[in-house]
Amino acid sequence: MKSFSDRLLGEILKKRNPSIIGLDPDMAKMPASLLEYFRDKEKDMFEAAGRCILEFNKRIIDSIHDIVPAVKLQSAFYEQCGPAGFRAFLGTAEYARRKGLIVVGDVKRSDIGNSTMAYSNAYLGKVPLFGSLEPVYDLDAVTVNPYLGSDGIKPFVEDCRKYSKGIFVLVRTSNPSSSELQDLGSGGVTVSEAVARLVNRLGEGMIGESGYSPVGAVVGANRKRLASRLRKAMPRSIFLVPGFGAQGGSAKDAVNFFDERGLGAVIHAARSVIFAYEKSGKGEDYREAARAAAESMRDDIVKAMKGSGKCPWQANSKL
Amino acid sequence: MKSFSDRLLGEILKKRNPSIIGLDPDMAKMPASLLEYFRDKEKDMFEAAGRCILEFNKRIIDSIHDIVPAVKLQSAFYEQCGPAGFRAFLGTAEYARRKGLIVVGDVKRSDIGNSTMAYSNAYLGKVPLFGSLEPVYDLDAVTVNPYLGSDGIKPFVEDCRKYSKGIFVLVRTSNPSSSELQDLGSGGVTVSEAVARLVNRLGEGMIGESGYSPVGAVVGANRKRLASRLRKAMPRSIFLVPGFGAQGGSAKDAVNFFDERGLGAVIHAARSVIFAYEKSGKGEDYREAARAAAESMRDDIVKAMKGSGKCPWQANSKL
Repeated sequence: MKSFSDRLLGEILKKRNPSIIGLDPDMAKMPASLLEYFRDKEKDMFEAAGRCILEFNKRIIDSIHDIVPAVKLQSAFYEQCGPAGFRAFLGTAEYARRKGLIVVGDVKRSDIGNSTMAYSNAYLGKVPLFGSLEPVYDLDAVTVNPYLGSDGIKPFVEDCRKYSKGIFVLVRTSNPSSSELQDLGSGGVTVSEAVARLVNRLGEGMIGESGYSPVGAVVGANRKRLASRLRKAMPRSIFLVPGFGAQGGSAKDAVNFFDERGLGAVIHAARSVIFAYEKSGKGEDYREAARAAAESMRDDIVKAMKGSGKCPWQANSKL
Repeated sequence: MKSFSDRLLGEILKKRNPSIIGLDPDMAKMPASLLEYFRDKEKDMFEAAGRCILEFNKRIIDSIHDIVPAVKLQSAFYEQCGPAGFRAFLGTAEYARRKGLIVVGDVKRSDIGNSTMAYSNAYLGKVPLFGSLEPVYDLDAVTVNPYLGSDGIKPFVEDCRKYSKGIFVLVRTSNPSSSELQDLGSGGVTVSEAVARLVNRLGEGMIGESGYSPVGAVVGANRKRLASRLRKAMPRSIFLVPGFGAQGGSAKDAVNFFDERGLGAVIHAARSVIFAYEKSGKGEDYREAARAAAESMRDDIVKAMKGSGKCPWQANSKL
């Protein structure tokens, strides 16, 4: 099987779209018609919420799967519906995979010893159950929190190797308070730079044909001044760049995160796409609004890529 | 309702036991009789695993609930059984609460914006669903990862205030690679010390009658040289101290984490108690072995507390 990095970059080239859409099913933003339908149909509120989420996600996937290479599921919005939410998470991941999408779980997990291995087994690998090895969520990649150091990340890296999966380690996040810890440092090396070096090291020996490793990095779109420094520290890591759209990042900012060929980054937006119907004036046609928003996001990014001369499917591309 | 810190310390004083037992249901360590029973009874392997975990946990809780103040559920071992694992997590939390135990979810979550709020709603607070507010896991406390800074922690703190809950922020963990990030720093302040200051600040204004806030800290039992420094930086935070038992921490080490009155810390062990049957030579009587191990852990810690003059229920206690 192709490495995760080659599969992700291959899909980006095929669809000419370096974006990843967040399936973050915030129940407060769901179309009223869906909410009413499932509320009437299911007695148990959590079951109703789980079914509503799965239906919403399937319809969003139907409307964008041919133009978008990947989706990212923010685990928090599923977990808040209890076990029924996890069924919706699983169902969404399966449906997205069936539609040819690369599926990233935004779980930000990490622990130590057996526990971090259990997380990796659950989300990327296989779980030993009753004498056999069973896949559970079987995602293509997950996000990982680095606070515990390499112990907390290595089991995931091992599963990247074994099962051709990927991870994105939080390096420099987009939120205002990220500097409280991530900017601390000594000897000219900040915490986020130390994590960047670790990310680079953990990916060694797993570089795909694309030149990228399966050990990627999360770097907020508003960290554009750090972009080239972090790119240098992690020349083989794909950047997952949140903060586009609702969080205020622009297409021009996003271009900073690509390499010279226009590869090596995938730009993330969630609310501004999947809940575009709220602002589109198209009433409840959330599917049409989501597709239009995904197209417009793609077009904005590609335009900025072309403007900067970093577009891999342009005639004069260096690829 | 009493604050989380007063409830936890009250239970510790009542049961004369400052320990917390980890319900970390590693399927590879389950008693063979339980595995066989549920394997035969359930076609679906994940359902079988979920039921096996819940049954095991209930029997362990039955055998220790009168001598132990609190339990901690390591989420990874539940998550690896998929949605059925989350049902076992929920069922275990409900059963433990019914038996008078304080329930801590070792979920190590944190995210930004709406997402971290969704996590806090799910595990501590209430989730807005179809126009009403519903509790989901309704735990007494959870562990929180600080990498994202205060943005990632504040929604949890808000729920501590609103619902009399608690959190334990990862400050200095017990694993070997924890130093890779947690020891970095500038101006004489390491990352873990910066987190300690943040923890202390976030707990301000919520100090209970016990003198402790609901914003606690995870500090590994093997960090005894840091114990007094971290205690000074967080005089109002209860320390959750993992690393006892299977991870090699001794009762004497553990005593370093208590305050002068012998309060302010809760010592954690999991495998060495719940899977004590593996080493007890008592065949499959895992319940009896777990109780004996929990008693022996308690006795070891209390003996060390008395030896150091820090035991709140001793005749000459300063309490």
